[in-house]
Amino acid sequence: MGLSMAAAYDRAITIFSPDGRIYQVEYAFEAVRRGWTTLGVRTRNAAVVVAEKQKISPLTDEKAIQKVFKVDDHIGVSFAGMAGDGRILIDYAIHQALIHKFYYDEPIPVEYLTKLVCDVKQAYTQHAGVRPFGVSMIFVGVDEKGTQLFMTEPSGRYLSYYGVAIGEKSGNVTEFLEKNYSYDLSARETVKLGILAIASIVESRPLQDYIEAGYIDVETKQFRIMGKSEIEELLAELEKEGRLKQEGRK
Amino acid sequence: MGLSMAAAYDRAITIFSPDGRIYQVEYAFEAVRRGWTTLGVRTRNAAVVVAEKQKISPLTDEKAIQKVFKVDDHIGVSFAGMAGDGRILIDYAIHQALIHKFYYDEPIPVEYLTKLVCDVKQAYTQHAGVRPFGVSMIFVGVDEKGTQLFMTEPSGRYLSYYGVAIGEKSGNVTEFLEKNYSYDLSARETVKLGILAIASIVESRPLQDYIEAGYIDVETKQFRIMGKSEIEELLAELEKEGRLKQEGRK
Amino acid sequence: MGLSMAAAYDRAITIFSPDGRIYQVEYAFEAVRRGWTTLGVRTRNAAVVVAEKQKISPLTDEKAIQKVFKVDDHIGVSFAGMAGDGRILIDYAIHQALIHKFYYDEPIPVEYLTKLVCDVKQAYTQHAGVRPFGVSMIFVGVDEKGTQLFMTEPSGRYLSYYGVAIGEKSGNVTEFLEKNYSYDLSARETVKLGILAIASIVESRPLQDYIEAGYIDVETKQFRIMGKSEIEELLAELEKEGRLKQEGRK
Amino acid sequence: MGLSMAAAYDRAITIFSPDGRIYQVEYAFEAVRRGWTTLGVRTRNAAVVVAEKQKISPLTDEKAIQKVFKVDDHIGVSFAGMAGDGRILIDYAIHQALIHKFYYDEPIPVEYLTKLVCDVKQAYTQHAGVRPFGVSMIFVGVDEKGTQLFMTEPSGRYLSYYGVAIGEKSGNVTEFLEKNYSYDLSARETVKLGILAIASIVESRPLQDYIEAGYIDVETKQFRIMGKSEIEELLAELEKEGRLKQEGRK
Amino acid sequence: MGLSMAAAYDRAITIFSPDGRIYQVEYAFEAVRRGWTTLGVRTRNAAVVVAEKQKISPLTDEKAIQKVFKVDDHIGVSFAGMAGDGRILIDYAIHQALIHKFYYDEPIPVEYLTKLVCDVKQAYTQHAGVRPFGVSMIFVGVDEKGTQLFMTEPSGRYLSYYGVAIGEKSGNVTEFLEKNYSYDLSARETVKLGILAIASIVESRPLQDYIEAGYIDVETKQFRIMGKSEIEELLAELEKEGRLKQEGRK
Amino acid sequence: MGLSMAAAYDRAITIFSPDGRIYQVEYAFEAVRRGWTTLGVRTRNAAVVVAEKQKISPLTDEKAIQKVFKVDDHIGVSFAGMAGDGRILIDYAIHQALIHKFYYDEPIPVEYLTKLVCDVKQAYTQHAGVRPFGVSMIFVGVDEKGTQLFMTEPSGRYLSYYGVAIGEKSGNVTEFLEKNYSYDLSARETVKLGILAIASIVESRPLQDYIEAGYIDVETKQFRIMGKSEIEELLAELEKEGRLKQEGRK
Amino acid sequence: MGLSMAAAYDRAITIFSPDGRIYQVEYAFEAVRRGWTTLGVRTRNAAVVVAEKQKISPLTDEKAIQKVFKVDDHIGVSFAGMAGDGRILIDYAIHQALIHKFYYDEPIPVEYLTKLVCDVKQAYTQHAGVRPFGVSMIFVGVDEKGTQLFMTEPSGRYLSYYGVAIGEKSGNVTEFLEKNYSYDLSARETVKLGILAIASIVESRPLQDYIEAGYIDVETKQFRIMGKSEIEELLAELEKEGRLKQEGRK
Repeated sequence: MGLSMAAAYDRAITIFSPDGRIYQVEYAFEAVRRGWTTLGVRTRNAAVVVAEKQKISPLTDEKAIQKVFKVDDHIGVSFAGMAGDGRILIDYAIHQALIHKFYYDEPIPVEYLTKLVCDVKQAYTQHAGVRPFGVSMIFVGVDEKGTQLFMTEPSGRYLSYYGVAIGEKSGNVTEFLEKNYSYDLSARETVKLGILAIASIVESRPLQDYIEAGYIDVETKQFRIMGKSEIEELLAELEKEGRLKQEGRK
Repeated sequence: MGLSMAAAYDRAITIFSPDGRIYQVEYAFEAVRRGWTTLGVRTRNAAVVVAEKQKISPLTDEKAIQKVFKVDDHIGVSFAGMAGDGRILIDYAIHQALIHKFYYDEPIPVEYLTKLVCDVKQAYTQHAGVRPFGVSMIFVGVDEKGTQLFMTEPSGRYLSYYGVAIGEKSGNVTEFLEKNYSYDLSARETVKLGILAIASIVESRPLQDYIEAGYIDVETKQFRIMGKSEIEELLAELEKEGRLKQEGRK
Repeated sequence: MGLSMAAAYDRAITIFSPDGRIYQVEYAFEAVRRGWTTLGVRTRNAAVVVAEKQKISPLTDEKAIQKVFKVDDHIGVSFAGMAGDGRILIDYAIHQALIHKFYYDEPIPVEYLTKLVCDVKQAYTQHAGVRPFGVSMIFVGVDEKGTQLFMTEPSGRYLSYYGVAIGEKSGNVTEFLEKNYSYDLSARETVKLGILAIASIVESRPLQDYIEAGYIDVETKQFRIMGKSEIEELLAELEKEGRLKQEGRK
Repeated sequence: MGLSMAAAYDRAITIFSPDGRIYQVEYAFEAVRRGWTTLGVRTRNAAVVVAEKQKISPLTDEKAIQKVFKVDDHIGVSFAGMAGDGRILIDYAIHQALIHKFYYDEPIPVEYLTKLVCDVKQAYTQHAGVRPFGVSMIFVGVDEKGTQLFMTEPSGRYLSYYGVAIGEKSGNVTEFLEKNYSYDLSARETVKLGILAIASIVESRPLQDYIEAGYIDVETKQFRIMGKSEIEELLAELEKEGRLKQEGRK
Repeated sequence: MGLSMAAAYDRAITIFSPDGRIYQVEYAFEAVRRGWTTLGVRTRNAAVVVAEKQKISPLTDEKAIQKVFKVDDHIGVSFAGMAGDGRILIDYAIHQALIHKFYYDEPIPVEYLTKLVCDVKQAYTQHAGVRPFGVSMIFVGVDEKGTQLFMTEPSGRYLSYYGVAIGEKSGNVTEFLEKNYSYDLSARETVKLGILAIASIVESRPLQDYIEAGYIDVETKQFRIMGKSEIEELLAELEKEGRLKQEGRK
Repeated sequence: MGLSMAAAYDRAITIFSPDGRIYQVEYAFEAVRRGWTTLGVRTRNAAVVVAEKQKISPLTDEKAIQKVFKVDDHIGVSFAGMAGDGRILIDYAIHQALIHKFYYDEPIPVEYLTKLVCDVKQAYTQHAGVRPFGVSMIFVGVDEKGTQLFMTEPSGRYLSYYGVAIGEKSGNVTEFLEKNYSYDLSARETVKLGILAIASIVESRPLQDYIEAGYIDVETKQFRIMGKSEIEELLAELEKEGRLKQEGRK
Repeated sequence: MGLSMAAAYDRAITIFSPDGRIYQVEYAFEAVRRGWTTLGVRTRNAAVVVAEKQKISPLTDEKAIQKVFKVDDHIGVSFAGMAGDGRILIDYAIHQALIHKFYYDEPIPVEYLTKLVCDVKQAYTQHAGVRPFGVSMIFVGVDEKGTQLFMTEPSGRYLSYYGVAIGEKSGNVTEFLEKNYSYDLSARETVKLGILAIASIVESRPLQDYIEAGYIDVETKQFRIMGKSEIEELLAELEKEGRLKQEGRK
């Protein structure tokens, strides 16, 4: 179907095109593709989310831009796409995790939380008067099933991954992950893999100012957002190992 | 009626075209046709649903993609089409089965459950402000009437089948089923028929990673989602019998 | 008025065309005309509904497709058009009959029940945000006034008939009925007339698998859905009488 | 204003055209003009409604088609236009008359009842999301003011008449009434005038099967729907008087 | 602005045109201009409303068409435009006057009542989903401020007048009033002026059948709808005075 | 941006044009510009609103047209634009002032009242289904901060002025005010300045019939609507001072 | 994408364009760009907002135009864009700060307050029937994390800055800030930097009449709106230091 016909079906959220697609949902995915790059990796020992931050202006306070969030003790999340939309859904996730703990006195399973968020996303694709959420989220966590990683789409679909990247440069990052991934990496190596993959596409310097990361390992079962010095230390280690060159572009 | 006129009637869900069709419902069926292939088969002794899973990316965790669900002890379901839509309706079915058991202290009849789900589907084809569900579901089960199999359409219509396939390669699978079906197959042969039919269209290897299945027989009256090793075992048996060749494409 | 002008008035349910027609209601009637053929006949002694079933695929279970329904002890119904819509209205009718019996402790008059269903249909032609029901129904029954038969239209209008056919081949069936109808037929002959009329347009074999029928007579005042063997018996009788040839096409 | 401009203003109920007209209301009147012909006549001594019934098909039961209704002991009504719409408003009128009698313990005045029905009609011309009622009604009755006759329009306007006809052949009937009307007719002659006027445009035979009538006189103050034999008797009388010829077309 | 642009702004009630006009409100005024002519006059001693009635058909009962209404003991009203709309607003006014008397135990001031009606009219020009009222009303009355006369517009604006005419032939009537008006007319002369002004544009005969009038004077402070004989008497008086010729057209 | 593009963005209230404007709000301002001219002036000693009244027809009662309103003892208001809209907002202001006095037992600050009215105006620019108010208001008053004058715009913005004019001839009036304004005018001179400014653009005679005014001074802190004789006296004084010539046009 | 296609996607708030953008949100940003220039600066010791005021007319009271608001003791705010929209959101912020203090008995964190406001903004970009807020706000404050500065966008996104400017001349102001900013400025120098930056683009004289400012320092933790004389004093100081020339344009 050519462009002009597509134009005919993509203006109202609640309708299908003749080939069974919902254009608004696909366009919302474009908003994700325009977002800053974010990845998630999980191995036997740990799960990590790492996000790129870009320089908006010389006087922006990048430190204060938050792309990685703790949802509950055992779950973290990052997103790519429209920041306002992301914030709403993350608040929703935090609230649902809290409620679950309150009612059942046990941590919410990672997939169940993902499902709850995706139910909201789905509803916003089926009813008139709203638009889909222009955001994809990567939930990581550890629960009874071990490490977990789910990526949610604007359609309300979610899938489980060992490694996944979303946003502007997700192509390069995914390629990097596919080459270097191994299920048996140690927790520390898992985090390093994630940071290295994002570092490979960050153009500003110093790198630690433009990378945000959080991880959880099967030992502690606690999701932790990494401090700037921690990231710096890992970057130095990666450089020492000859896997990363930090100089150059700024 | 030519294409340009069709275009005039297919943009609002609540209207008929001059020939009495509702285009949005038909386009929703296209979403089903674009989905991964899923089949259902029932014989005197058993009923089975088998679903294809495709490789999305090298780091997707196919194990975690669920296409076959247990609705109640005696009912299972699979679907083709939009995953988010399917999940909503399956949750609804599980909930309705639970409520029925709670109120009447007996398992919900399979057709009655199917009807409840189809009532929701129908409503989404008649009221403005929503779109139809872009999903077809296959319910299988055993109740007082013996083995049961219903396929639901986006219009809210459902039909009873001995064998049915939906999704991308449903044509090939249906053809296969029509050639090989017999009402008197044993429970084990019923399952093997279903798995063989899907195996014939799965392109990734090893097959057991890309096939999901569940079945119920008239003896146990318990729907069971099959483990990976069970599927592997049946595939091996089918290969030994000369009915299947697993090597080749990956 | 030419086609292009018609196109201008038929897209919104709640409006009239300049010649005082509501196109959406007329298009809904097209959905009825596309449906499987169904007839109703009533004589002094009995009232019958007979419906055609078509072969959808070799593995469909035609036995499980229900086109004739018992609404109450003394009322039956069949329909032509969109199956999902029909189911909703039949459920509504069953529910209303039940409520009437509960409140007044007497069977609901057939016309009153028909009116209740048609009130719903009418409302769906006058309010925005919904489409008309794409279904016509034939109610038959026996009450204080004797045998009754009403056919309801998507507009909410209903009429009383001695014989009426709706759906794809209603033209042929109506012609047949007009030639062979007599008010004084016995109950058995009434049923045979109905079955013969539908049999004349059914193309699949054996006929008993593709014909569904129900009747009520003034003696028993009980609506009964006929078993397959009953239909088979009547077909044999009709053949013996030289009124029907069952061989041939399948 | 030419046709193309009219087309621009007639699609949304709640708007005026530049010349202050509401096209949807005028188109609803077209639905009335397409209806079967109905008349009302009132004289000093009686008020009558007479309606034409047409042959729909050889197996329709014209006897069961009701065009004249009793609203209360002292009020009757008939209508032309969309049958489903008419039924809704007549039910409403019956209900309002009942409520009035219940609350005030006296019969509802004919004009007041007419006003209540017209308030509903008016509302359906001023609010979006609904269409006007495609029906005109003729209320006749006797109350403290003597014989009464009101004709309601789809706009919600009503007028008082001595004689009025609506529907397909209202032109001929009106002409007939204007020539033959006299305020001082006896009750019996009033009824005969109404029946004669309708008889003049009915094409099917025997006439009594295609004419429905009801009347009220100032003596009894009871509205009565006439039986077929009564109509037949009056027709015979009219024929004997040389005012009517019943043979011919069928 | 030319015609084609106007067409672009006049289809949705809730929007302004680029020159700050609301076309729907102006078109509603056209409905008023198409109405039968009505006038109001007030002098030091009395206030009167007089309305024209036209012949609709030879069998219409003009006596029963009411164009002048008593709202409360001290207030009367007439209108021009859509009859159904007028009736709704007059009912509203009657109801508000009653409520006021009930709560405050004193008659509602004429302007306050006018304002209440105009608040409803204004709301129907500012919210979507409704159309403006296609009616202008003339309220006359006597209260603490003496004689009162307000004319309400579809926009919800009202103005005070000594004399005003609305409807089809308001131009001629207004011209007549401007030439003959005097604030110091006696009550009787005030009524005669109003009747004479309408008589000058009524084309049917006898005049008293096609004129309706009501008045209130500062002595009685009671609004009275005039009987046909009263109007006839005044017409005779006017003829005797040589101010009116009644013969001629019919 | 040319005319044709503007046309594309100005039909729905709730949307921005590509250059960040909301056309409907700007068009509502046109309704203000078409209104009769009104001004407000405040000095150290007083604040005044003066409004022009135009001759609508020879029999209009200009005395009864009110353009200046008392909102509370210490606040007055006038407006330009659509009269119906203005009345609604003035009623709202009066009601809010009353509520404030009731709850806090002290007069509402002028700016706070203005803000409350503007909150309503803003809401009508941001939500669908309504149009903005086509009216600008000038509030004057005296409170703890001294004399106050606020002009509200259809957008919901308000600004404080020493002198401001709105409506048809606001350009001339503003020019006049800018030339003659002084903050230190006495209360009497302030009122005379306002009256002189409006008098300069009023075309009908005698002037006192076509000018309405109200003022408040810091001594009395009471807003007073001026009587016709007061205005007449001031006009005479102005004429004696050689600042105004009243003869001429009528 | 060319202009004509953009036009196709920007008329309904709730939809995405094919490249994942929401045009209405971007156009709302244009309303911000058309607003008067406002800046925010924060250093180790203080945070300041400074806003430009323009001359609207010779008789506007610029003193009364408020562009800088105190939200709570420790938080101030300014905005650029549509004044009516800004006022609504600032009221909302003040109310939320109050509620927080009431419930938790401690001052609301600056970022949390910003988030609450942005949640409202986001909702107005995702639901039909409303338009986004055409306003950006700069919140400054001091809380447990030290000085804080957040700029909110119409999309509901907010970012932390050391210095940021919004509105008509934000380009020049931003450039100026980037050249002269230092994190270690004293509180007084921080305020002077902000005032100097705005002074550089203000065209009216005297400057103190057209500049509004508010600041908070880490010592007092109290947000203060500056008096005109304070601003005058700082301007004089800046002039003495040779950093500013006040003469010239008026």
